[in-house]
Amino acid sequence: MTRIAIPADSFFGSENLPYGSFSTKDNPLPRVGVRVADSVVDLSVALGDDVFAQPTLNPFMAQGRAAWDKTRSRIKELIAEDIPDAAVHAVSDVTLHLPIEVADYVDFYASEHHASNLGRLFRPNAEPLMPNWKHLPVGYHGRSSTVVVTGTDIIRPQGQRKGPNDPAPVFGPSVRLDIEVELGFIVGVGSRMGESISPDEFAEHCFGAVILNDWSARDIQAWEYVPLGPNLGKSFATTISAWVVPLAALEAARVPTPVQDPEPLPYLRGKENWGLDVDLEVHWNGDTISRPPYAPMYWSPAQMLAHTTVNGASTRTGDLFGSGTISGPEKNQRGAFIELTWGGAEPVLVNGEERTFLEDGDEVVITATAPGLAGTRIGFGEVAGRILPSRGGAQ
Amino acid sequence: MTRIAIPADSFFGSENLPYGSFSTKDNPLPRVGVRVADSVVDLSVALGDDVFAQPTLNPFMAQGRAAWDKTRSRIKELIAEDIPDAAVHAVSDVTLHLPIEVADYVDFYASEHHASNLGRLFRPNAEPLMPNWKHLPVGYHGRSSTVVVTGTDIIRPQGQRKGPNDPAPVFGPSVRLDIEVELGFIVGVGSRMGESISPDEFAEHCFGAVILNDWSARDIQAWEYVPLGPNLGKSFATTISAWVVPLAALEAARVPTPVQDPEPLPYLRGKENWGLDVDLEVHWNGDTISRPPYAPMYWSPAQMLAHTTVNGASTRTGDLFGSGTISGPEKNQRGAFIELTWGGAEPVLVNGEERTFLEDGDEVVITATAPGLAGTRIGFGEVAGRILPSRGGAQ
Repeated sequence: MTRIAIPADSFFGSENLPYGSFSTKDNPLPRVGVRVADSVVDLSVALGDDVFAQPTLNPFMAQGRAAWDKTRSRIKELIAEDIPDAAVHAVSDVTLHLPIEVADYVDFYASEHHASNLGRLFRPNAEPLMPNWKHLPVGYHGRSSTVVVTGTDIIRPQGQRKGPNDPAPVFGPSVRLDIEVELGFIVGVGSRMGESISPDEFAEHCFGAVILNDWSARDIQAWEYVPLGPNLGKSFATTISAWVVPLAALEAARVPTPVQDPEPLPYLRGKENWGLDVDLEVHWNGDTISRPPYAPMYWSPAQMLAHTTVNGASTRTGDLFGSGTISGPEKNQRGAFIELTWGGAEPVLVNGEERTFLEDGDEVVITATAPGLAGTRIGFGEVAGRILPSRGGAQ
Repeated sequence: MTRIAIPADSFFGSENLPYGSFSTKDNPLPRVGVRVADSVVDLSVALGDDVFAQPTLNPFMAQGRAAWDKTRSRIKELIAEDIPDAAVHAVSDVTLHLPIEVADYVDFYASEHHASNLGRLFRPNAEPLMPNWKHLPVGYHGRSSTVVVTGTDIIRPQGQRKGPNDPAPVFGPSVRLDIEVELGFIVGVGSRMGESISPDEFAEHCFGAVILNDWSARDIQAWEYVPLGPNLGKSFATTISAWVVPLAALEAARVPTPVQDPEPLPYLRGKENWGLDVDLEVHWNGDTISRPPYAPMYWSPAQMLAHTTVNGASTRTGDLFGSGTISGPEKNQRGAFIELTWGGAEPVLVNGEERTFLEDGDEVVITATAPGLAGTRIGFGEVAGRILPSRGGAQ
């Protein structure tokens, strides 16, 4: 039997308890575990429930809020006592897998600072914010098949690009490969066609949150994105963290969103606070180059889900929605290199070297923490990815 | 035993043989069948193979081209002989289900006539075609959860809209509910991250085609779509036909695309012809109001798949990609009401009544046929949907 020691300053104490999918050398079948300090508790063993002997969280998430709450209580009791050795693994000994089977993936654009910066960069002769931006959370559907777990290498995408002075588009590996620092929110219980989810019903549907890196090839995106939005500039890869932080763990992080003026339409209004006081950090080859804060995000995730369903679109277990790039008001709070370097015109120092976009071999690691209950601080783990050279081949 | 009589002019003769998912009163479990004249042959019974005892075509599609070809040969032999009664049902006696489990859904914009018309309507003060349009098949990801089978009622979506003279957006049921007549192409065998599919590898990956109606709320779309593309204006419903016409049945329909000038980049060039001579018809409350031809579509489905994967994005069994609205050069060949009525300014006559967009209770049926081998004509069946009033509720 093992009693897991939880240091007082652990980001993975009893007020966090994020879920993930893991396997071990002895048992290569992915199954559901919960992270406690530097250990992973195998819930298929510890709770003896087949819903955790599945390769993703989806079957558990589909059970709904009452089951989520009950399981969280049982886990708190469990880790206060000795646990059978067979149920406890060191985090360093396990392989982490994509924790969810992704249904639909929708990416939003909820930071006013990011949307304004991108507007200035992509459309220098127009108002930075589109007229719709303060009336609805603008979003688009992304590619579900290329959502990968932290640690997955990212192959530099190829595609068409056309600079303002190029007479015709050229083809090749992207030369403006970027990141977008985001949080991702996961639907546990969906809704049927014709139903809509109000902002105050958010906690009945949303299971939890992850860190999300929406890798972006800015040169491909700039050429392709009118009039139907981003496609190949984004669809090659999206990385999420391995540990899904339950919504219940974010109680102490809940804050009001910034004042929304003009007041949104009634379907986007709620009484509950779903702004989130989450602090993120971006590490480029180990050098911390930005600290984007989630709290100033204009639209809340509850508003994003309400908007997604107000037309009657159904949602499903495993739906993932991204917040959009998290950028604060300060330069060192920007969550994308295109903003940090102002389109490449103002390089940043990475370990003393001037850099603009990602080079082959570069590694980006994004971390996030938030206040937990009882004076604790909780962690999301990390989203990490290293850039591999383009495969070539197609022309 | 039953020998299925196939009239010489049947759209579902031995040169078609489309696959679908069906159930019967006696056996409510959806399973895979093939349509022959006015009969459905239960392949789980007739071929005794468990891959057809599944609720969708996905497991069969995942087996690949050699298995598809072999099965098609076996079916041709089978229907030339007597078949056990238990394997044969009248089409009128079965319930048809969504034939595939949809993985990612990408919708293109491949008709030059449609893209030009929409450009004139949505952006009257600019060039109708964007500079990228003749260099790449423009497309965006749509919502997979709301792809439904023909016959499913369509609830009028609600959402925000803002006319040019409205001081602020208003909320309510869409007042410009439209259709988009398309073909949908289904990926049988996918590709891994980092791989790309050339246009001449199309037939190894694409299983077959369906008719697709990309229902569109033009008022919601016009307000939301900048800068990230359509979202709620499309995400409420997409209907596909119940019978998946195998690519092999479309051999006689293959034609060159129109001349592509400028010549596309090498990754979009192929030696094979993947233009398709498919004729569609749009019936509005029973009145035939348009006959869109597929043959003039600028980009081929093989080019759409090549483009989707050239950045290394993976594809999966069940991926669905829509052609975009099929509009020919003539007014009575337009595949969307916004084009047919020029944004509502020029009503069309439907059973003698002037109409612009869809009213509650309206039914739209889209049919399609193509030349088959041996002088036959093959059918895609239909995509039908009736508009139900908005549910109200949210504001």
